[in-house]
Amino acid sequence: MPEIRIDFITEERVIVATERSRRPHDFKKAEATAEPAPEFVPTCPFCVGNEAMTPPEVDAFREAGTAPDTPGWWVRTVPNKFPALAPDANDAPDAVGIYTRFGGYGVHEVIIETPKHNETPVVASAHQWREAVRMYQRRLQTLTRNERLKSVLIFRNEGKAAGASLEHPHAQLVGLPFIPPVLQRYIEGVARYQSRHGRHPLEAILEQEVREGTRLVNQTARFVVYAPFASRAPYELAIAPTTPALQLATMDADALSEFADVLQDSLRRLYAALGNPPYNYMLFTAPTGYDGVFWEHVRIAPRLSIDAGFELGSGVGINITAPEDAARYLREASTASA
Amino acid sequence: MPEIRIDFITEERVIVATERSRRPHDFKKAEATAEPAPEFVPTCPFCVGNEAMTPPEVDAFREAGTAPDTPGWWVRTVPNKFPALAPDANDAPDAVGIYTRFGGYGVHEVIIETPKHNETPVVASAHQWREAVRMYQRRLQTLTRNERLKSVLIFRNEGKAAGASLEHPHAQLVGLPFIPPVLQRYIEGVARYQSRHGRHPLEAILEQEVREGTRLVNQTARFVVYAPFASRAPYELAIAPTTPALQLATMDADALSEFADVLQDSLRRLYAALGNPPYNYMLFTAPTGYDGVFWEHVRIAPRLSIDAGFELGSGVGINITAPEDAARYLREASTASA
Repeated sequence: MPEIRIDFITEERVIVATERSRRPHDFKKAEATAEPAPEFVPTCPFCVGNEAMTPPEVDAFREAGTAPDTPGWWVRTVPNKFPALAPDANDAPDAVGIYTRFGGYGVHEVIIETPKHNETPVVASAHQWREAVRMYQRRLQTLTRNERLKSVLIFRNEGKAAGASLEHPHAQLVGLPFIPPVLQRYIEGVARYQSRHGRHPLEAILEQEVREGTRLVNQTARFVVYAPFASRAPYELAIAPTTPALQLATMDADALSEFADVLQDSLRRLYAALGNPPYNYMLFTAPTGYDGVFWEHVRIAPRLSIDAGFELGSGVGINITAPEDAARYLREASTASA
Repeated sequence: MPEIRIDFITEERVIVATERSRRPHDFKKAEATAEPAPEFVPTCPFCVGNEAMTPPEVDAFREAGTAPDTPGWWVRTVPNKFPALAPDANDAPDAVGIYTRFGGYGVHEVIIETPKHNETPVVASAHQWREAVRMYQRRLQTLTRNERLKSVLIFRNEGKAAGASLEHPHAQLVGLPFIPPVLQRYIEGVARYQSRHGRHPLEAILEQEVREGTRLVNQTARFVVYAPFASRAPYELAIAPTTPALQLATMDADALSEFADVLQDSLRRLYAALGNPPYNYMLFTAPTGYDGVFWEHVRIAPRLSIDAGFELGSGVGINITAPEDAARYLREASTASA
């Protein structure tokens, strides 16, 4: 029988209908790579040696004495060549009859996570992956100092079905001149719960997930990984720190390494259980200058099903895998390097 | 330069970034059919003669004297074999620790629009297509009498990239025991505008679209077809009646035929301009027992791009085709039967 689950924070409904449920094995065909990608691809703008194919870099971890936009880097940040929002756009409103539009001011960057075309997060060394995540931290620190930006979203697209147009491992940051609806609803949901119960809803969630264990996937000293009770789609995962004091922009090197390892472990579990699934992940960070308690978290969304007319027209997800089943498979999945 | 457009009703932002813009021709590869589908497919549960492969029909237009679940029908409605929501589920709340879930009560039906496997809306005769839409009307009338349902969504998925799992022409209806977020935000946006301006925002929109003409695609005595100013994705269309008094459940036969023709014309324009694109359309109808003025409309969403981490994490669409350009191409597109 299908059931309707209520998201604990946003209070939005999700349908869990497992009649069509599939075991993880059945999702595997999704995006099995025909043959392994090579380490260097001459036409790839993100491969080492091809630095001239991107806009000039804005940041990099690189060997002492090497010049910008030349080899010698191990993580590199460049402006997106086809930006969704542009730093040189104005942000003035403009009336089109009854309608309003604004110039598309904003920042859109690409973090190239490795010089090697085939060094995906699941095969990367712990050191390389931690460096990639350290660049997430550094770019977030930089962008949140820009007072024209109201929020910053870090995300990663893996696989064509997740909207990735380039194969070379990379993440993206978009700095927005407004607070987007998904973030706004999270903040409103948190405020609603706090005013009723006097504490942050994520505290209640993590308590229950750790105690109950049925949706728990992994736990370290500082982080909890779980399949959210009202996951919108199969095999979604959330990663949350045990305290809101731990934030990406300010966490120390030890916490940052632990965070990078937990993220990599989660991706390896999905890879092992589902066979290189397309996925997105998103890091939800506080709006710029936010003065409430903001509990950061990551949402990992494998793209195993397609939103159709029902989802577009209602805003309600239909999840064909119970989060409890997904969590069990992912607990059991191998976390060795792929 | 990218721009940010504000949806006139929901006030949600959309990014229009045409740097990567493509002419309609460049979208065409999307889902070009290798060879035309046959009229009958032995394994298709929706083909005439295969009635035993579906759950028993709940409604049909069929020749006098023919029995249910046998040939003789020209439009047929059956329960979805893998329902998102089920009429025999209970709808009682159930606590899972701090979380809440409900039984998945609801109705999920499939309207098989034609006995012929290859009679898509773009090739169907006006008569056959009007009959299909008349069935939409009849099922909507029936479901809205069910007081346990709070809203009914009629939608259609065409093509795998739009989530269609079966090729045979069909639409779906889901009756929900709640008002879903997309509908709720529309209603709230309408109420907000009405309280400020004393009239319905769609009245203002249609006035401007008809007068300005740059986003107008088609216009008949009773309906206006336009590319919404803040379309979330390329080539989106809206179809709205010129007055909220025209509602699917209650419109007379003349208006219903005109509506069916306008819908078919819109699909033919998209087919001609984009080459059989995958798409969804959704009919937004008033919540059951709604006592405000509800202005119905259809949203047609071609699926030419994939929502990636940015869209999932922000709720903001990135549209790479200006609605004004989309409208111009669609005005010029052939509306002959495909």
